Amino acid sequence: MILNKVNYPNDLKGLSVEELNNLADEMRELIIKKVNTTGGHMAPNLGIIEAVIALHYVFNTPKDKIVFDVSHQCYPHKILTGRKEGFINPDKYLDFTGYTAPEESEYDLFKVGHTSTSVSLALGVAKARDLAGGNENVIALIGDGSLSGGEALEGLDNAACFNSNFIIIVNDNDMSIAENHGGLYDNLKLLRDTKGLAECNFFKSLGFDYLYVDEGNNIQKLIEAFKTVRNVNHPVIVHINTLKGHGLKIAETNKEAFHWILPGTLDEKDTQTVIVNEDYNSITKDFILKKAKEDKTFNVVTAATPGVFGFTKDYREKLGSQYTDVGIAEEHAIAFSAASAKMGAKTVFAVMSSFIQRTYDQMSQDLCLNNSPLTMLVYWGGISNADATHLCVFDIPVISNIPNMVYLAPSCKEEYLAMLEWAVNQNEYPAAIRVPSCELISTGIEDKTDYSILNKFKVEEEGSDVAILGLGSFYPLALDVKNELKKQLNINATLINPKFITGLDTELLENLKQNHKVIITLEDGVLDGGFGEKISRFYSTSDVKVLNYGALKEFTDRIPLDELYKKYHLTKELITEDVSKILCPAEV
Amino acid sequence: MILNKVNYPNDLKGLSVEELNNLADEMRELIIKKVNTTGGHMAPNLGIIEAVIALHYVFNTPKDKIVFDVSHQCYPHKILTGRKEGFINPDKYLDFTGYTAPEESEYDLFKVGHTSTSVSLALGVAKARDLAGGNENVIALIGDGSLSGGEALEGLDNAACFNSNFIIIVNDNDMSIAENHGGLYDNLKLLRDTKGLAECNFFKSLGFDYLYVDEGNNIQKLIEAFKTVRNVNHPVIVHINTLKGHGLKIAETNKEAFHWILPGTLDEKDTQTVIVNEDYNSITKDFILKKAKEDKTFNVVTAATPGVFGFTKDYREKLGSQYTDVGIAEEHAIAFSAASAKMGAKTVFAVMSSFIQRTYDQMSQDLCLNNSPLTMLVYWGGISNADATHLCVFDIPVISNIPNMVYLAPSCKEEYLAMLEWAVNQNEYPAAIRVPSCELISTGIEDKTDYSILNKFKVEEEGSDVAILGLGSFYPLALDVKNELKKQLNINATLINPKFITGLDTELLENLKQNHKVIITLEDGVLDGGFGEKISRFYSTSDVKVLNYGALKEFTDRIPLDELYKKYHLTKELITEDVSKILCPAEV
Repeated sequence: MILNKVNYPNDLKGLSVEELNNLADEMRELIIKKVNTTGGHMAPNLGIIEAVIALHYVFNTPKDKIVFDVSHQCYPHKILTGRKEGFINPDKYLDFTGYTAPEESEYDLFKVGHTSTSVSLALGVAKARDLAGGNENVIALIGDGSLSGGEALEGLDNAACFNSNFIIIVNDNDMSIAENHGGLYDNLKLLRDTKGLAECNFFKSLGFDYLYVDEGNNIQKLIEAFKTVRNVNHPVIVHINTLKGHGLKIAETNKEAFHWILPGTLDEKDTQTVIVNEDYNSITKDFILKKAKEDKTFNVVTAATPGVFGFTKDYREKLGSQYTDVGIAEEHAIAFSAASAKMGAKTVFAVMSSFIQRTYDQMSQDLCLNNSPLTMLVYWGGISNADATHLCVFDIPVISNIPNMVYLAPSCKEEYLAMLEWAVNQNEYPAAIRVPSCELISTGIEDKTDYSILNKFKVEEEGSDVAILGLGSFYPLALDVKNELKKQLNINATLINPKFITGLDTELLENLKQNHKVIITLEDGVLDGGFGEKISRFYSTSDVKVLNYGALKEFTDRIPLDELYKKYHLTKELITEDVSKILCPAEV
Repeated sequence: MILNKVNYPNDLKGLSVEELNNLADEMRELIIKKVNTTGGHMAPNLGIIEAVIALHYVFNTPKDKIVFDVSHQCYPHKILTGRKEGFINPDKYLDFTGYTAPEESEYDLFKVGHTSTSVSLALGVAKARDLAGGNENVIALIGDGSLSGGEALEGLDNAACFNSNFIIIVNDNDMSIAENHGGLYDNLKLLRDTKGLAECNFFKSLGFDYLYVDEGNNIQKLIEAFKTVRNVNHPVIVHINTLKGHGLKIAETNKEAFHWILPGTLDEKDTQTVIVNEDYNSITKDFILKKAKEDKTFNVVTAATPGVFGFTKDYREKLGSQYTDVGIAEEHAIAFSAASAKMGAKTVFAVMSSFIQRTYDQMSQDLCLNNSPLTMLVYWGGISNADATHLCVFDIPVISNIPNMVYLAPSCKEEYLAMLEWAVNQNEYPAAIRVPSCELISTGIEDKTDYSILNKFKVEEEGSDVAILGLGSFYPLALDVKNELKKQLNINATLINPKFITGLDTELLENLKQNHKVIITLEDGVLDGGFGEKISRFYSTSDVKVLNYGALKEFTDRIPLDELYKKYHLTKELITEDVSKILCPAEV
């Protein structure tokens, strides 16, 4: 194996192109096996192996600096920069993150996981180099899908008039996570079709020098191109035409499905019948499809991650012109959706918790200041064992402190559907719903709540001494705590389902003062700026004690969920212990 | 006067071009007089008068829909849509906002004041039209300066492949607020120089149909162009070459200074000597200039609003290559600055409170997740009588709930300078400083605090019973409250200067429990997600009562400051009354 003698980029320098090709094959095999075992980004990594080898062959890293965009295509880079054990040895499969991570290696400049950042970050690196009088190459690697993000476009505009060495590799595999959308992509196609020769060239229009590499999976050709631009004294685009999923047939033909895969995907037999139980994705899809059929102005918008919501290709086709994927362009998505809703089209924008933070100003100005009746569905909100780049604990502070917004937290299927129904039919508020990130819970009882009466919390069970406010996906925990309090302390606690994140039921909270000493808030998100703090503020001048439970303000990185729950006291036992300390301080 | 018979766009339809020209002159005179009296956006409005007349002449508003970008160029539109009294009658000068406002007129579609939104908003309008089966024209008006914002670029990319009527007017006056920056602007220049004929065309590269109007202040030519694109069945760009400040010589030559002017600017005599006292702007400028001279890697970044910080043209020239204005591109600004700081260049990014919210995800991912030691200077943070589109009360929840960030609130010149010194010299944290929005206060005593000891609040005066935490620009109010408490209730309150917004001095807060019954927090910003709530959370299980003061979660719109202060109980008298109610409930 060639890889036996390759540990760092320097080890590539003496190899022949044939050896480099063999190396690529070996790396491909490792990546396929590893990703199929652990799950992860498959197709993006398979498509970039040759380019990464060529980059490390031509450039002198870590002195020369490479900034990866999203960095879900960094596996080959990790293999070549001291971390191959994480791909060879199954015991070490989880030793390294799926993204660039400076704490792992000096070859990784930034911790990244959200898209469209590499051009701006690399330009900052180049600026610092110039101010310090350095002469190393600075290279930004960016996929075609990421180009449509506002940050990338702002960065390109600025980078084009930078006055020294700056190299942008555009890894064009003609795919975002799903297919691309936007005029830019027609231009990329034109450039591919004309082998980069078309006069009408997006990059050149911005002022970039431009080089096209048709065979973006050909190491020899890539080396030639990279050598041409090495030590260039101005900004240059190297547009390389690669194949997403290269070398794995099923990934080449199913690019979207193989963008990111679950463990064992390759082992599944074709004939296998997958039994899909009802879940929050499926009921959302059914709801939307029904509404779209009933109302031709019903309008559904996503920003490049339809797969997260189960909006498969055939589902999207069913929605036809009532569905728009704007690509990686969350800011545009909010403004576009908000305006559509304002003009009377019932509009739903579906988004992941981690990515809603890419469009704060648009939520504030385009949506909430205009009180546009958009329905936002926020998926995956909650504490998780995710990578630090994809945490979903910040959506409550991000969304709920904006005036006019109504942010709802359903605790079960029936509430969720009732909230959906209300949100899409009303014309008064920007409404967001935090789609529960837990398994579907069904009470079987239709929810007939009138959600136009805002900030009305629901008392599920009346009790005394202690009241538990269990928000959304933490409602089941609240129920557990109630039972534990009964068992351990013989307390009949009041159980409350707040439903509304953005406002307080002051009448109810006021009444609770009469026969409650302790109020517990449980939220599946960060405490700072969240729901519980507002309850603490409400009671801050009363004798009632408040216990706020949720995540601490920190970037956690792949920490097991039970470990986080323990740290945050998010178990019925620990909470009961805390209550006991307050009610019976003498015993402690 | 022609204007006598013009109240609504319909009144334009029968006029000759000569009459329209005369109308433009009359409108120009009104705008100059009004803006010079009230202050406001001068040059942008003077440059667009002819285009707005031509738009309303050709199109059939309000059925046809025009979406203004930023809308600080909407004065001529307001004159022509039922609101001319607000420009003719000095008593009514303040009746209408300086931005489009749907509550004023059905001709205004959205409330806008942040840039780069019109393309996306208008595309949403067009989408809703298509779903409803309508056939009206939808027009987005956008200035060249706004084009560089991520939201606009995302919108353009998406709009280019829209499959029905969509018209974008690019109002190109070759200026942002200050000069433009970016490759896009070289292309706009090329297009102007070639009368739109250059093959290399940014808009065409995205797939737009394209029409160039060289004389963008010529009503006849504009009418011809707009008639050409009226009822077009696809997306088209009409690129009009206008003169910012058109018709007012001093504005034409001083475009940046006349972008927005103070009342009476035109009346000032040239010979007048302006005595500028020391203020937070001037000491910041001095600090930066000194550092830049001492350290060649010192790096200063702004995003299109250098004037807000007093970074005049000659000041920017003094900084030379150590200064970068990225134009309207806040996302890029953060990533670029953060990366530069991470690579060792001491970097300062200056930004207005209202605009920091345009880059939340970049602060979270590019900056804080990477712990890059950038220094952010946040200006104008605080409660104000501003227009709803430019409120500066949200920066504390936006910035301070992101992990790793250190957000500092100085209360005087000496603290500010010490914090600045610490921030730029350290390498551990992303640091933001809330530049006080009040007048400069100087104690005359050098601040020798070591700010690397995080979250250390300063006890300015020790007392008992009540402790007042006066954050940043509200520290003087805290002092007033202390005196009032002494006077009214004979209480010697403890006076605390928290300095740190992002973390609590838990040791101090714990100690306060011993001899304090009430803690008061004062913050010049919104309460929800802010500083005070964290203090409430800290004390939520103790007997200490907490009173949080700050703004309510709402979009206020040009409400006088004293009215807001009264509403929010932000006066020493009202606060003392609240304290009295808690300490002596029987008396109430």
